[in-house]
Amino acid sequence: MIDTARFLADLHELRQIGAFKTGVHRPTYTPDDMRSRHWLMDRMREVGLVPSMDGLGNVLGRHPGPGPHLLVGSHIETQDEAGWLDGALGVVAGLALARAGLAVDVVAFADEEAHYGSFLGSRSLIGEVTEAEIDAARHCIHGKPLREALAEAGLAGLPRARLAPARYKGFLELHIEQGSKLENAGLRSGVVTGIFGVRLFRITAIGQQDHTGGTTMAERRDALVAMTRVLAMIDAEFPRQIGDGTVWTCGRLVVEPNAPHIIPGRTEAIFSFRDLDEAVLDRLSDTLRRIVAEADRRDRCAVTLEPVSRSAAALADPALHAALIGAANRHANGAWQPMPSGAIHDAQHMAKVMPAAMLFTPSIGGISHHWSEDTKEEDLVLAIRILGDAAAQLFSLRS
Amino acid sequence: MIDTARFLADLHELRQIGAFKTGVHRPTYTPDDMRSRHWLMDRMREVGLVPSMDGLGNVLGRHPGPGPHLLVGSHIETQDEAGWLDGALGVVAGLALARAGLAVDVVAFADEEAHYGSFLGSRSLIGEVTEAEIDAARHCIHGKPLREALAEAGLAGLPRARLAPARYKGFLELHIEQGSKLENAGLRSGVVTGIFGVRLFRITAIGQQDHTGGTTMAERRDALVAMTRVLAMIDAEFPRQIGDGTVWTCGRLVVEPNAPHIIPGRTEAIFSFRDLDEAVLDRLSDTLRRIVAEADRRDRCAVTLEPVSRSAAALADPALHAALIGAANRHANGAWQPMPSGAIHDAQHMAKVMPAAMLFTPSIGGISHHWSEDTKEEDLVLAIRILGDAAAQLFSLRS
Repeated sequence: MIDTARFLADLHELRQIGAFKTGVHRPTYTPDDMRSRHWLMDRMREVGLVPSMDGLGNVLGRHPGPGPHLLVGSHIETQDEAGWLDGALGVVAGLALARAGLAVDVVAFADEEAHYGSFLGSRSLIGEVTEAEIDAARHCIHGKPLREALAEAGLAGLPRARLAPARYKGFLELHIEQGSKLENAGLRSGVVTGIFGVRLFRITAIGQQDHTGGTTMAERRDALVAMTRVLAMIDAEFPRQIGDGTVWTCGRLVVEPNAPHIIPGRTEAIFSFRDLDEAVLDRLSDTLRRIVAEADRRDRCAVTLEPVSRSAAALADPALHAALIGAANRHANGAWQPMPSGAIHDAQHMAKVMPAAMLFTPSIGGISHHWSEDTKEEDLVLAIRILGDAAAQLFSLRS
Repeated sequence: MIDTARFLADLHELRQIGAFKTGVHRPTYTPDDMRSRHWLMDRMREVGLVPSMDGLGNVLGRHPGPGPHLLVGSHIETQDEAGWLDGALGVVAGLALARAGLAVDVVAFADEEAHYGSFLGSRSLIGEVTEAEIDAARHCIHGKPLREALAEAGLAGLPRARLAPARYKGFLELHIEQGSKLENAGLRSGVVTGIFGVRLFRITAIGQQDHTGGTTMAERRDALVAMTRVLAMIDAEFPRQIGDGTVWTCGRLVVEPNAPHIIPGRTEAIFSFRDLDEAVLDRLSDTLRRIVAEADRRDRCAVTLEPVSRSAAALADPALHAALIGAANRHANGAWQPMPSGAIHDAQHMAKVMPAAMLFTPSIGGISHHWSEDTKEEDLVLAIRILGDAAAQLFSLRS
């Protein structure tokens, strides 16, 4: 039913756009990202969908026949110098289902990778993004205003689309695992039970920039020493407060002025943690607040904490989840497991307006957000068969 | 004897070149840096010296009369967005002494601020810099090759100068304190007993870049967590190993890829410490090696240590030091102190080939390497009087 050869061929064709080593480099709204969106619209036309792109670059291919429909997709842009499957897999999977004649709309949500914002595309499609948020958004590293990036990408002035939830039985997203749980367990597929909630904070330490040689230790207000103490306290205390499977990360640390012979005057860390249980997230938020307050009191630097974003944990819709489990049992009996998603996904936002569920395929070595990210071809084929079977099952239940 | 008004006027004129807020921005070999070097050559001609610039941008103004001479100077380029007196003060002080009729050569050593190397100018003038070192040198932040910067500055092909140590009774350098010891003690001048030795190391942690959500804590090899543990161990252990007045600093920490949702795959820290006592420096080097080896053994990341540079502690020449003390007693009785220099200076390298000594003037609030760096005008005037008196004393002893 599913043309798996064509599915793989589409993935490899998309991989050529913005190729970097064995991965791809298609940050949101760059020329290569926009080329990939237009490539996708061409493929949608080929499989009989009616494509459109909205003012944030969201691409939606609508099935022209009668409903109800399933919405299937993911994102198409990538992190910098990242993998070829992260996001792309879920979008191309949607194409494969549509090509097989299923009543599927295919979507590529813009900027899931947070170059300019937090899930701008999927949140805009469900009405959560205001014009003011777009006015204020800037690139997370170099600070270019989102409006400028949209204008450069030829999107200025295009209307933003809104999904009609009543059109859909639900949303399915196939994604790479971005971890090594499946590989370590010798399994080939994962049916996602729920998506972790995430709390993201900014920790800032303000000290006094000074020459390293002429300033005694007693006189110093070293913002990197202060930040090191905060991170060391987190390293010591978080393991005592966590739940099963909690993860926590300082992914970004900026030191100013970051010169060998100057005492750091300011440091800023982005720190986040994830869990399926909101009570655990609340407890860890309290722990973090206490650690930062203690550092601020003890240290000669001013240390502050600021919440940047949070997303609530989302459990899979029971009917969609059951359809995926049925298909996994038929195609991969004994070779799949139920599992939570530590990573956040567009499905989390779709789950606010319609039933949603996700399927994972293994990441070799657990690697993602890196150009060496990969998945075995036979696992990709298995995944599209499970997804297609589950979708067919959902339509047959209805009819 | 010293024209203090003219001395201050020269300082304020030089301050206009590359002005940034109340400070200056004249990184080595930038157009503003080169303008300041040509400005200096014009001033040298005015006071009767014969100026020349060499292939690294070192500016030397030779006194045309009979010797022996004193060499007086410092550097003229600055850190990024830094202070107006750091370096410039010592160069303009040389001009003031020459203008007063003393047999003084004035020097501005290139790149003391280490944009491209470690004391390239002063080390080249004493024959310590090879062409191969120049070939290999790159800008410490953006990586531009030194050869390219020299060509852009119009210096390519110019010969490098060598000092003739026999020409000189010695070298005197007036510099801002770059600390707050004088201010805190209510003093107006410091006669430098010696310059701290410095050991500078690179610490590198190599882990595995990965998505923050999909990778369990047990699977992670987080290069920032590994580096945090090293810095926390230093923070805990160094205070037990130090000497009187030792300082230690991690001024630069680079996290890759430094994105909120990616586990850091690589971190690199530049860590240094300073003391007057080589035995203390040796002991701290051993401590650092032990800490890094322990982190490498304990952690799932590879943690390595690499020495980048070292400079030996340098004590002041007794005769020059005594002349400065005599002058300080005459002009600032009870308002000066002997003190070591925590910062390294060009004088450290001059001390290898001729007698050398330094004089400090207070930094308001102890601030340096920042545009808000400043010194009271009356302290600047006092400093040039002490320096001029000491120089005159040294010439009179000889004659």
